[in-house]
Amino acid sequence: MDIKSRLWIEKDGKPFIGYGRIKLLKEVDKTASISAAAKALKMSYKKAWNLLNDIETLATQPVLVKNIGGKNGGGTQVTDYGKSLIVQFETLNENCINFLENEYKKLEL
Amino acid sequence: MDIKSRLWIEKDGKPFIGYGRIKLLKEVDKTASISAAAKALKMSYKKAWNLLNDIETLATQPVLVKNIGGKNGGGTQVTDYGKSLIVQFETLNENCINFLENEYKKLEL
Repeated sequence: MDIKSRLWIEKDGKPFIGYGRIKLLKEVDKTASISAAAKALKMSYKKAWNLLNDIETLATQPVLVKNIGGKNGGGTQVTDYGKSLIVQFETLNENCINFLENEYKKLEL
Repeated sequence: MDIKSRLWIEKDGKPFIGYGRIKLLKEVDKTASISAAAKALKMSYKKAWNLLNDIETLATQPVLVKNIGGKNGGGTQVTDYGKSLIVQFETLNENCINFLENEYKKLEL
């Protein structure tokens, strides 16, 4: 047997960050490109853009910055705040899994 | 902001109990009838029966008993084991919510 959980955080009653959005944000961080991230996750560019825009809209600080020109120009970078969302969500998820594994031992199913 | 979670328990890689199944089981317990429970949850009888059958198949003990004849005959009763699944799942869910509310306070989103 196995215990599973899916967590997400809402803001103003709307989804803010969850498993799928964090996965997308990580992929943008890795590839520095929304279109490459969308492709890696087999998602349309429009879908990825909308999800990232939903995060931006609810976030207290910018999540992405666009590099304009320069040697590494044209890419999209995840801000330190955006990176902190990734780390915090993943930590929360891990802590929850550990908590549930422990609770699970007490059950008689 | 608000933190949300959806928990479920798998057995042999298949869903055993989760929010929807427990809700159905509670409704059967309340109405002593699979068809009344299905109706209350706006679900087809077939769908409800299949979900309950999935639980039975993976459970270590019977979850439901059919009353045959007698004054209160014809109904479906949730066994003590079935009731313990409801209580344990709901307790697990509450404990998880409390845990997450506490973790949530530590976040900077």
